[in-house]
Amino acid sequence: MLTDAIKTYQQRVDQVLSQHLHNLDDAAPTLKAAMTHGALLGGKRIRPFLVYSVGNLLNVPITTLDNLAAAIECVHAYSLIHDDLPAMDDDCLRRGQPTVHIAFDEASAILAGDALQTLAFDIISTPIDGLSPKQQLAIVKSLAKASGYQGMCGGQAIDLSATNQRIELARLTELHNKKTGALISCAVEMALIAADASESDYAALMGYAHHVGLAFQVQDDILDIIASTEELGKPQGSDEQSNKSTFPQLLGLEGAKQTSQQLVDDALSELTKLPYNSQLIADFARYIIVRRI
Amino acid sequence: MLTDAIKTYQQRVDQVLSQHLHNLDDAAPTLKAAMTHGALLGGKRIRPFLVYSVGNLLNVPITTLDNLAAAIECVHAYSLIHDDLPAMDDDCLRRGQPTVHIAFDEASAILAGDALQTLAFDIISTPIDGLSPKQQLAIVKSLAKASGYQGMCGGQAIDLSATNQRIELARLTELHNKKTGALISCAVEMALIAADASESDYAALMGYAHHVGLAFQVQDDILDIIASTEELGKPQGSDEQSNKSTFPQLLGLEGAKQTSQQLVDDALSELTKLPYNSQLIADFARYIIVRRI
Repeated sequence: MLTDAIKTYQQRVDQVLSQHLHNLDDAAPTLKAAMTHGALLGGKRIRPFLVYSVGNLLNVPITTLDNLAAAIECVHAYSLIHDDLPAMDDDCLRRGQPTVHIAFDEASAILAGDALQTLAFDIISTPIDGLSPKQQLAIVKSLAKASGYQGMCGGQAIDLSATNQRIELARLTELHNKKTGALISCAVEMALIAADASESDYAALMGYAHHVGLAFQVQDDILDIIASTEELGKPQGSDEQSNKSTFPQLLGLEGAKQTSQQLVDDALSELTKLPYNSQLIADFARYIIVRRI
Repeated sequence: MLTDAIKTYQQRVDQVLSQHLHNLDDAAPTLKAAMTHGALLGGKRIRPFLVYSVGNLLNVPITTLDNLAAAIECVHAYSLIHDDLPAMDDDCLRRGQPTVHIAFDEASAILAGDALQTLAFDIISTPIDGLSPKQQLAIVKSLAKASGYQGMCGGQAIDLSATNQRIELARLTELHNKKTGALISCAVEMALIAADASESDYAALMGYAHHVGLAFQVQDDILDIIASTEELGKPQGSDEQSNKSTFPQLLGLEGAKQTSQQLVDDALSELTKLPYNSQLIADFARYIIVRRI
């Protein structure tokens, strides 16, 4: 059920994104190709999944959700293109394919990221059936807050400044709440705004999103260790040598596992406050900490 | 009168921008400083001038225009930060000061540009006194169209692909209409949307903006030559050696001067269709082609 839903929504948002990119004129073919490469590299489309599944829970028509899902994925894709640049993480491969600055060049990668960010705001400021201008403006605001200085960009800046340093748990949590959590919360908030949700639904689902976002990052850190152990035969905990602080480093592997489990329990507890069948997003929260990729 | 107005609006938008940047929390101090450096490097603030002067012409309260002016300048500032990067134009100085990647580092410059773009959309999606959500959403859309693939980013991509090539006049015109003209037109369009302007005002002022935007770029190309002649003692026309196509290269210096004059005449002719005293923006159009910087 969860696997099917993830796949269905993944295919759906890829289709919507493809269409938006295809619709661009051919005035700047290299830029268009670089944007398309970066946006359609694959991935689980976690953020669109949350837009669709929470929107569906709240009875928002799926066609109303399509452009919200596509826009948030444009922002995520732009952030990956820029994070991969030589001046940032200097990554040549993503999902087994060359990153944008490798497949094209650095200038095109910078511009493709820039233009994908703009495309996100273009998509959500174009009138959408079922939403009022007031709702759409609130969605624009939510996306801007989540992706700018107060959110994703700020988190990436904290991450850069924390490299080669051991930071406190509170700072590590702040970093991830901004770098990853803010956009995950925004995905849920977009659906809530589209549904004109009640205050109590809003509080419960934003609580869910907050816990899921952080659990996602703790599990990422855990997977880094587990992957290392299996693939490289390094003893558990050897990532203390790494130049970035992680949750297992600060809490120990078992402590990190307990934290991620607690976060998922907290997320599930929020869902019990809802008067809906929230099976799908409950399964998604549980999946976050059992996934292997 | 024009000089005073340019200075007044310049100081006003700088104050609004400063306040927005000052209001950011201190969670990522390097990023905040890099954004502030890039946004407050100086400059004539041509785009805010157009927002304010056209808005004033159409009786929009100046306090309603402040955030529109600040937002469009955030987009312009972000584009300069990214254009100056080593992978793009590789410029170390701008307005006599170190560019952002020199004053800070490349990663901070990329992020500062990213976050200034987001800040623009954040600012114009926050409720503004005197504007309806519908108007604000249309303003978001206008800014996204002008700055993304169809506008500024696309123009920069065409510019990159045209380096070391001689391109046709039509392509050069398209390049500049997108790279510079789109955002200049957007400044005027923001004011028109804020004023709920009539169709005829809209047509005349967008025509004005189109001609002024292109005249601005033709004059930039002319100034490059005049500056070279005076400073380097190079003969007029020696810029044909340069690796980018320019209007004087394709039209000759006299031809380019005639073109810019014609564009200003066309801009002024649009203003005669308006039932307002448009002296200030008429003077601005004339100033475009007599300015020396």
